Amino acid sequence: MGFDVDSAVFRVHEGGKLSLQSRMPLVDRESLSLAYTPGVAEVCSAIAADESLARAYTWRSRLVAVVTDGTAVLGLGNIGPAAALPVMEGKAALFSEFAGLNSVPICLDTTDVDAIVDTVERIAPSFGGINLEDISAPRCFEIEARLRERLSIPVFHDDQHGTAIVVLAALRNAAAVTGRTLGQLRVVVSGAGAAGVACAKILLAAGIGDIAVADSKGIVHGGRADLSPVKAELAAITNTSGLTGSIAEAMVGADVFLGLSAGFVPEDIVRTMAPNSIIFALANPNPEVDPEVAHRYAAIVATGRSDYPNQINNVLAFPGVFAGAFDAGARSITENMKLAAAAAISEVVAGALAPDHIVPTPFDSRVATAVAEAVARQAILDGVTDAVPAAAAS
Amino acid sequence: MGFDVDSAVFRVHEGGKLSLQSRMPLVDRESLSLAYTPGVAEVCSAIAADESLARAYTWRSRLVAVVTDGTAVLGLGNIGPAAALPVMEGKAALFSEFAGLNSVPICLDTTDVDAIVDTVERIAPSFGGINLEDISAPRCFEIEARLRERLSIPVFHDDQHGTAIVVLAALRNAAAVTGRTLGQLRVVVSGAGAAGVACAKILLAAGIGDIAVADSKGIVHGGRADLSPVKAELAAITNTSGLTGSIAEAMVGADVFLGLSAGFVPEDIVRTMAPNSIIFALANPNPEVDPEVAHRYAAIVATGRSDYPNQINNVLAFPGVFAGAFDAGARSITENMKLAAAAAISEVVAGALAPDHIVPTPFDSRVATAVAEAVARQAILDGVTDAVPAAAAS
Repeated sequence: MGFDVDSAVFRVHEGGKLSLQSRMPLVDRESLSLAYTPGVAEVCSAIAADESLARAYTWRSRLVAVVTDGTAVLGLGNIGPAAALPVMEGKAALFSEFAGLNSVPICLDTTDVDAIVDTVERIAPSFGGINLEDISAPRCFEIEARLRERLSIPVFHDDQHGTAIVVLAALRNAAAVTGRTLGQLRVVVSGAGAAGVACAKILLAAGIGDIAVADSKGIVHGGRADLSPVKAELAAITNTSGLTGSIAEAMVGADVFLGLSAGFVPEDIVRTMAPNSIIFALANPNPEVDPEVAHRYAAIVATGRSDYPNQINNVLAFPGVFAGAFDAGARSITENMKLAAAAAISEVVAGALAPDHIVPTPFDSRVATAVAEAVARQAILDGVTDAVPAAAAS
Repeated sequence: MGFDVDSAVFRVHEGGKLSLQSRMPLVDRESLSLAYTPGVAEVCSAIAADESLARAYTWRSRLVAVVTDGTAVLGLGNIGPAAALPVMEGKAALFSEFAGLNSVPICLDTTDVDAIVDTVERIAPSFGGINLEDISAPRCFEIEARLRERLSIPVFHDDQHGTAIVVLAALRNAAAVTGRTLGQLRVVVSGAGAAGVACAKILLAAGIGDIAVADSKGIVHGGRADLSPVKAELAAITNTSGLTGSIAEAMVGADVFLGLSAGFVPEDIVRTMAPNSIIFALANPNPEVDPEVAHRYAAIVATGRSDYPNQINNVLAFPGVFAGAFDAGARSITENMKLAAAAAISEVVAGALAPDHIVPTPFDSRVATAVAEAVARQAILDGVTDAVPAAAAS
């Protein structure tokens, strides 16, 4: 299989990417008797009497489980739980590096929806939040919905909502740069998987006027007999102009193309878009529209790649979303909290907008803090938290 | 409930006791592209092609899940998964501090044996080993047995085997100090729970001649109609002299008392033991025999307490057991590996034995290394590992 295990990539993965320590050195009888027996029994008894004390006295209050079944990993597809682990370690590392959160990969040896839901529910007392990752559609929708219903901790499918939040943040700024409001834009979304569905929904919630979603069979509309329940729901809330046919029909005169599918869009279709258009071609490593071609027709181009400007990267969202939810003690992540996260990301660069600067770079240290503050504030407004922490109340 | 949250115990528990970090700073595009996308895809593909590479390139190779259902926590009993979390964090901290292993608490929201086994099996791809902890008997026996059968990673119920290993290590040295061999000792075990069963088995495997086990109903023997399957098995392999009645009958002339039950044994029973006797009274915080009384009759006294000499503490065993199993790439932990661990603990203090020094102190840094080396060596001899690592082969 020709893997170069002497390469930098393999070298940084030796022994894995995560390290766990005791926060307190256990070097003598006294430290052991405080952190372990007999002292720990007091803390256990206190939590047994009042479980809310677990927030103050265990690490779970700021601990995210990164849960996958390995069915939709990066562009690799269904590679299974063991092969997915390096990605989940990376994700956990990002939670730590970008928001100071603890995070543990949980790679599941099952792809059965019931089994996944049951398993996550059973391990949930160990964690403060559940980040679902790289679980294939349409199973991901049901898994998230059922876990949200059963658990009273934040559950967040990053491939859906992380992407949706950053896309909305970028699109709001792209609209501003091109002198339009979100309500004036007609959007074509290519892809009706996890990201496509979530992006369509958040864009509608943010006031986008009309969205047409296309999957591999063409535009999603109510007349199609092959729609899954999720796509049928999409058909009901999108495509108000009643388009049918291939994505090419939808692209004529469209203001925005949002590529989330890796389905290549040739130049003769791109050129039919409205003037002053916006192209987000997010597939990695090969964007749906060649960036050079896109620049010929569009006022603003964004990709998922780090070597072009305007990188749409989920890391702008998920660390701050969980940090804010934890700060507020939120029991769930509401639609408003996602909108607040998107607004916060937009605002970080609002004073320095340009066609090649509609989102912060992934390493802008202001972002996670701004997102966390906005999310925590919204959690309290939405009533999904018990207490008003001092930090968020200010 | 009168908890003093200003006390040192609560203060060291604020925010929990564990901290997880990225081993590599993710501060720029280059580091991100190595540890996360796009670089990580190469490592994922390599593991998808050959899962054995997960040992070299993920953190699971040295990662222990500390799994509990919160049913038998310390002396507190069934306090549930959330209240058990501080103990599991402490255990994870000990794995880190004593053997440099990563370890994550998994507290389960179920006490059903099938559900526990299924859940642990499903999350197993995330971990290199499973340490079962504070799960009540007799469920713990079946859970461990089924997981050992289903998983090809080490599964170890510490309340059973950690205790058994350290007890055997201590008893071997106690026998040496008092000029006897293990085969010459007649032992009474008080308690037929997790620790009692495991201790009886390891002592028999190590060559103890005769053991009588007593539970709350008296001596375990084949004539009792109330025996669980596990106790029936005990009855078949212990009590060769056919004792019946209460523990008092067994104590007459016994060489060793091993208390694992918290059942108090009064002085008039203790005084019936053989001369030169050995008393291990391991209940915390109140030993089954008052240490002062024990010293009146016994040549050697050990307890579970840190404020007396000869502390029988599982931390002498479990960090090195897992470290050794991981070093060797062991697929399971065999009976021989447990015996090897016990021998290694004994040998650390073999040159400095005294009645008040039959085991190393918990902070003797030689122990984990010695145990790990012995366990790894035995794993290879027992054929439960694929490769002979250079370190263990030397």
